[in-house]
Order: sequence, then C-alpha cells, then structure tokens
Amino acid sequence: MIQNDTFLRALRREPTPHTPVWLMRQAGRYLPEYNATRAKAGSFMGLATNPALAAEVTLQPLARFPLDAAILFSDILTVPDAMGLGLSFAEGEGPRFARTVRDEAAVRALAVPDLAKLRYVFDAVALIKRELAGRVPLIGFAGSPFTLACYMIEGGGSPDFATVRRMAYARPDLLGEVVAVNARAVAAYLAAQIDAGADAVMLFDTWGGLLPADAYRRFSLGPMRDVLAALAARPGPRVPTIVFTKGGGAWLPEIAASGADGVGLDWTVDIAAARAAVGGRVALQGNLDPLVLLTDPDTVRREASAIVRAAGPAPGHIFNLGHGIVPGTPPENVAALVEAVHATSRTVRLAAAAS
Amino acid sequence: MIQNDTFLRALRREPTPHTPVWLMRQAGRYLPEYNATRAKAGSFMGLATNPALAAEVTLQPLARFPLDAAILFSDILTVPDAMGLGLSFAEGEGPRFARTVRDEAAVRALAVPDLAKLRYVFDAVALIKRELAGRVPLIGFAGSPFTLACYMIEGGGSPDFATVRRMAYARPDLLGEVVAVNARAVAAYLAAQIDAGADAVMLFDTWGGLLPADAYRRFSLGPMRDVLAALAARPGPRVPTIVFTKGGGAWLPEIAASGADGVGLDWTVDIAAARAAVGGRVALQGNLDPLVLLTDPDTVRREASAIVRAAGPAPGHIFNLGHGIVPGTPPENVAALVEAVHATSRTVRLAAAAS
Repeated sequence: MIQNDTFLRALRREPTPHTPVWLMRQAGRYLPEYNATRAKAGSFMGLATNPALAAEVTLQPLARFPLDAAILFSDILTVPDAMGLGLSFAEGEGPRFARTVRDEAAVRALAVPDLAKLRYVFDAVALIKRELAGRVPLIGFAGSPFTLACYMIEGGGSPDFATVRRMAYARPDLLGEVVAVNARAVAAYLAAQIDAGADAVMLFDTWGGLLPADAYRRFSLGPMRDVLAALAARPGPRVPTIVFTKGGGAWLPEIAASGADGVGLDWTVDIAAARAAVGGRVALQGNLDPLVLLTDPDTVRREASAIVRAAGPAPGHIFNLGHGIVPGTPPENVAALVEAVHATSRTVRLAAAAS
Repeated sequence: MIQNDTFLRALRREPTPHTPVWLMRQAGRYLPEYNATRAKAGSFMGLATNPALAAEVTLQPLARFPLDAAILFSDILTVPDAMGLGLSFAEGEGPRFARTVRDEAAVRALAVPDLAKLRYVFDAVALIKRELAGRVPLIGFAGSPFTLACYMIEGGGSPDFATVRRMAYARPDLLGEVVAVNARAVAAYLAAQIDAGADAVMLFDTWGGLLPADAYRRFSLGPMRDVLAALAARPGPRVPTIVFTKGGGAWLPEIAASGADGVGLDWTVDIAAARAAVGGRVALQGNLDPLVLLTDPDTVRREASAIVRAAGPAPGHIFNLGHGIVPGTPPENVAALVEAVHATSRTVRLAAAAS
C-alpha cells in the first residue's frame, strides 16, 4: 500500500486533502546532489544505465521536498537506442544518434527492440520501488511515438525538426511506419515498467505541437491512443496513464478522449478554460511556467497559488510545471512552490466545503 | 483604384472569384534576385533603410508569381531602433540591440520615437505604391507591442525569451510600461504607413504564444487591441487590419474579438475548426506549414489544396503560410503553390455554386 496516494487519487479524479504536486525533471541539474552523482557516473548515459545511480537521483528531490510522486530518472531516447540507433550525449550538447531513419531501407529495418536491452530501466524501477517503501507512487514514462520519431529521423534535437515535417508531407507512408513501430515498442516498454512496479505511466509528446492538426492526429495522437489501448488491454489491475503534448492546447478535447486518465498542460494553457473544454473526463496536470522558478519565492508562491485557485476545488488536478525544470532553478524556489501548492489547495478545499 | 482587390475583399469577407494569396517573407532569401539586391545594399539594414532598394525587393516576388498582395519589405525592429536601442544584424546571426530595456531606468527612458527617424519606411511605402500602379494592394506591418518588447528586453533573439518571461512574473508593472509605450509607437507607425499609402496593415505577434493565457491577454492581446482602437479612431476611410499571434491557436475567439478584420493562423491550426470557433466575425489568413515548400510541387499542390478545401467556399479566407518562407525554398514550389490556390479555390466556388 502507498502511504501518500494523493497523486493516484487525483489521477482517478477522487477527492484529496491537498493538490498533489510533482515536477517534470524534478531530479536534475538544478540540484547539487544530482550533479555530484552525475559526476560519479561520468556521463548522462552512464547515469541513466546504472540502476543504483538512477535510483539515487530519482529519490534525491523527495529527500528535499514533500513531493507527492517520484518519477523514474531516465531518458525518452533509451527506446531508439535499444533499436540500435547509437545514442550519445556530447557534453553541453543535446542527444545524437549515430544512425538516422530517413529512407525506406532504414524504416524497413526498424523493429521493436529486445526488451532485455532495456533491463537497466526495469531494474531501476524495481530498485526505486523498494527504496520508496510505499511512501509515494512511482511514475514510469516514455517518449510518444512521434516525439521519438523526431529524434530518430533528425538524428538529434532541432529547433524545428524540419526533416520530420518534410517527411510528414512528402512521405506520410514512411513516417506512418516509423510511428507504428514506435507505438508497439513504447507499449511494450511501458508494460515492462509497470511489471517492474511503476504505479502510473506518462507519455511525453514534446514535439507533437509542431504539426498541423490533421498530421498531429495521424502521427502523434493516433499512435499514443494505440499505446494506451495496448496498456488497457493487459490483464491485471489497471495502471493509470497521462499524456502530455506540449503545444497541444488547442486540441485538448481530442487528447482527453485518447483513453488517458490524465492530460498534461503546458504553461500557455488557461487551466480553468481547459477544465471547461474537457469536462470531468480526465485529470489535468500542470501548468506553471518553469521560468517562474527563476524569479523569487514570493513570485513563485503567488503564481503557483493562482493556478491552484484557477483549477478549483473539484478533484482531478495534479500540480506540475508546464515543461521541465530549467537548470538554473534555485532549490529554495522549488521548496516555496511545493509548500504553496499544498497550503493553497487545502485553503481552497476548506473554503469550498464551508460555502 | 486597385485592379486586383481580392485580398481587400476577402479581408472584408466579401465574395472573390478565387482565394487571394500572399506569403509571409515573400520577398526574401529564397529568391536569387533578392540576394543580388541585398548584396548591392551591403547589409540587411542597408537594404531596409534604402527606400529604392526596399521597393525593389518588395516588388520582386510579384514579377515572378501572380500574388494577390504586396507586403512592404522591412523589419519589425525598425521601431525599437528608432527608440534609440541601436539595432544591428551580424552576418549569419539574428538581430542585436546595443542597449536592452531591463530595469526601471531603461523603462522610464522609453518613449514613442520621432517618426522622422522612420521616414525611410514611409518613403518606401509611397514608392512601392507608385510602382505598383494599382495592380494589387500593399500591406504595411509592425511587430506587436509584446513581440517588440521581447527583443528590446532580451537584446536580440532567443529560443525561450527567458528574461521577458521572468519580467512578466516578477515585474509585471515594468513589462506593462514597455508594452504600453510600444503600443503608442506602433499605432503612430502604422498610421504613418497608412498615410503613405498602405492599403491594409498587419501586426506580427511572433512571441505572444510563449505566454500563459492571462499574461498573453495582459501583455500582448490588450496592447494589440489598443493599437487597433487607435487606428480605428483615425479620421478618414477605414484601413483593414490583421493580427497574427504565432502559437495563439487556443485563443482564437479572443483574438477574433480584438477589433481586427483578419486573424492570421499558424500552421498547427485546423482552419475549419478555426472558422467554427470564430464564426463569421473575421477573415482568416493562413496557414500552410512553410516547410511544405521544401518538398516538391506535387506535395505543395496537394497540401495547399487541402487547406483551400478545408477553408470552404464562404468568403473570408486569405491564403498564406503559417509562418515565413524559409531560405532554402525552391521558387518553383512557390509558383506551384500560388497556381494551386487560385485553381482549387475557383473549383471549390464553382462546385458550391452548382450544388
């Protein structure tokens, strides 16, 4: 049993005494203890592929802040790496693949990877679960099929993912094959994380918002729906799911109908308008601009409280940022954030109960 | 009188025999004749500040393609340059300001610039109008008050405009002052373009979509509304206006209520859904992904026609890209685009009339 299960209850839209909060990239470079562990590991992938060290950094933010969930420390690109594309992270730069997937031959050669190559991830999940000892739930995650395709086709990060967008228009058949393989791979990967102990899983669709609406439906939302359907069809207890498309604010009703239990919101979305748009179908997760954490504790408290109040007292809000914590964030601002979310949400509930 | 006034009629939501088309950055680096003129001018600002050369590049795309409007060749940063911030463009890089606007003293020192410093722009407008000889309308433009503030505060371009977003949270009073001055400057600047002969004016809000919804209303949409109100209050014939917020797809009903005659759509927006969201209030302008122009003529024709069909036969669609033409665009793809928009829109009208 999980002692603080507010995150899971909010995801099921059940009442909670306060709004649960966790933060994308809560284990990361803004924490000196993370940097120390990463230095020990030698490299980002050295850290991600070492279950003991991955567990260590996963738990670090929970030792500092009363967060309501842990999230596996890993990277979305472990999956295409296991497909044989040769992932590396040059110091101070983004990810790079040794091989790209741009032509018919490369697309035909793609296959769902042997999950044994990703055992370090599942071992980390199992180890974190043991070390959490039921304090809070553990969230597993994967990149969305389309977001993985972006890196696989482009060969790394990009300001505009021009190669991918060109392929969406000129060779939709090829891009369709890539995301279909990715959807099967991601479904198997998340199922294995669940088997290893993940209490919920999230799909990060960082780049779906770059697409025209119809291409988003075809290449991003559709494959995510396939992943969610595959997870829902598994025997055993249902593990809740969250989808997050950055830049998907105009498509929230469709995203909410994807089969996910929760929908992540980036910081541009008005959370009250989002609730009105999706009704009571799903939990909403978000959505403070991560750059608010670069200001000061008073500003952090004010902006975080505004979101808690806009989300209202009804069940189904999980507080988060609208994107990952940025490296220069002062940890004391994160402390102020978590405290403000808990305190304001208790006040909002009391006021609603009294009225 | 203007011979081909389809652009102005579509902007007023009046019937036209075909859907008018113009393209953001239609005068630009994808055209060899533009590069030749720019080389002659020596630098980007040398080109922008020389009315004869600015007129020359403005007219170049019209000599190649049957476009339905010309747009002044200039840069949105002429206004903060005239405010004394010291604009320069380093070769191969983006714009840079010698002075930034980040503290109280710099904000207090801001003022609406002497329009005499921008006379080269108004001279270019007058010259282009003469050389167009009434063939098609001429569009004037300015950056939105918030988008100008982004560059003024950051000191140049940025992937995330972190300094501006931090100011929006920590010092909303200061950012409010900057955009208020900018709104007065932009209103005066556009009024002078209209006096010089511009037949319509457009506000480019490239960065408003980076803001949370409430900050967008306060710092971007509100000041744009002020600009539009100032223009509407001028004596003389009403000159139609267009606002374009990149990333504003979730806010279209509010943008459509801003007082503008037309609303620009970026390429992520479903134009049929946009029409349903805003009703018949405004014309819609857009919204092909500019990267479609990096594919091939057949793909360009198919994707452009799909947008024309999605926009439907009702008046009030101006075809455009969802963002500016990118430098590597083959001119023959632009030719295919313009031809497809004209041909498909005639077919759509005939089919609607016959049914």
